Amino acid sequence: MEEKRISKAVITRMPRYYRYLGELMDEGVERISSKALSEKMHITASQIRQDFNNFGGFGQQGYGYNVRYLHEEIGKILALDTAHNVVIIGIGNIGHALAAYMQPDMQSFHVSGIFDADPNKVGRQVGALTIRHIDELDAFVKENSVDIAVLTVPRDYAIGVAEKVVSLGIKAIWNFALIDLNLKLPKGVVVENVHLMESLMRLSYNSQNTDGFII
Amino acid sequence: MEEKRISKAVITRMPRYYRYLGELMDEGVERISSKALSEKMHITASQIRQDFNNFGGFGQQGYGYNVRYLHEEIGKILALDTAHNVVIIGIGNIGHALAAYMQPDMQSFHVSGIFDADPNKVGRQVGALTIRHIDELDAFVKENSVDIAVLTVPRDYAIGVAEKVVSLGIKAIWNFALIDLNLKLPKGVVVENVHLMESLMRLSYNSQNTDGFII
Repeated sequence: MEEKRISKAVITRMPRYYRYLGELMDEGVERISSKALSEKMHITASQIRQDFNNFGGFGQQGYGYNVRYLHEEIGKILALDTAHNVVIIGIGNIGHALAAYMQPDMQSFHVSGIFDADPNKVGRQVGALTIRHIDELDAFVKENSVDIAVLTVPRDYAIGVAEKVVSLGIKAIWNFALIDLNLKLPKGVVVENVHLMESLMRLSYNSQNTDGFII
Repeated sequence: MEEKRISKAVITRMPRYYRYLGELMDEGVERISSKALSEKMHITASQIRQDFNNFGGFGQQGYGYNVRYLHEEIGKILALDTAHNVVIIGIGNIGHALAAYMQPDMQSFHVSGIFDADPNKVGRQVGALTIRHIDELDAFVKENSVDIAVLTVPRDYAIGVAEKVVSLGIKAIWNFALIDLNLKLPKGVVVENVHLMESLMRLSYNSQNTDGFII
């Protein structure tokens, strides 16, 4: 099967569509035109149609989009219809927060193990999970089929831990360490960097330059 | 003074330059060519020169960039040379993590107050700070000159809290609630959204479509 290459910008918008459609479902809206969705999301209607055409379109002329169907289809595109098995490595402030935040209610992301290198943390509970020592990661990943590793380790440890994770066959890393891990790992491994500090710096810039800012 | 409008893409790269230059300083590197920086960052040298030209350039032909000077200048552009006074509203998992994470070592961002609506949380300590009741925000902001509000409140409260914050004269919001606050607030207020869930969904997509991904 020939696979179409989808641009990063489209992929960035898909979770946003998913979110708005979820909200519309909660409001009891059953169908929506691209124009109405466009006004809600501040994206042009033609952009919306183009984005959806990447996946074969989902609308019917003159009818608009069936909200529930579109939500479900975008969920499938985002691979949210299967449960991902997740480990979190590094239970500092952010890792602890993510471990607590991701445990309940998340159908698509199942946190099965949380790890830290600090012996003082090992054995402590975060929600229903007990912090394990990082040395147990190897055996854990072999016993459980882990899809995603969340890396919330200090910057200097990030590459080492990432390489370890990749060597165990995990191909997706949600990286919170302030380092561009995607540039350091073999092809075929996908990394999503969340660089909080850089986001805060952009806010700092924009707060001083509200006129000098264009989208 | 005429102000030049800088594109969002440039602003997104500036904190990344700042980070790499900080690392070079730590390594004792005193100057670097745009070519060497380009290889390190996987950005073309011409892109780097273009980005810096937005701010008048910083290099000398044949010499390259003075690392410390460039780091300092980019720091000024990002308004990191002045301390921002920050409040954090919503001390759940993420808010708590940010309150703990941002307290030490941050020269440019000074967390002065943390707030929650839950009476059971009020009075508890996070690091050196005591959680205050949200009703105290008004008086607090009037007494302290607050620049930035971090919003880590549940989605349904986000607009209300944001409007409150804006009414108190705070013009920069670092928003973690899963809602596009920038579309809901008056012009002149800058919002930086951190939608963690959407980042995780992109990772989910990319983990299934490593071949279909282009930058």
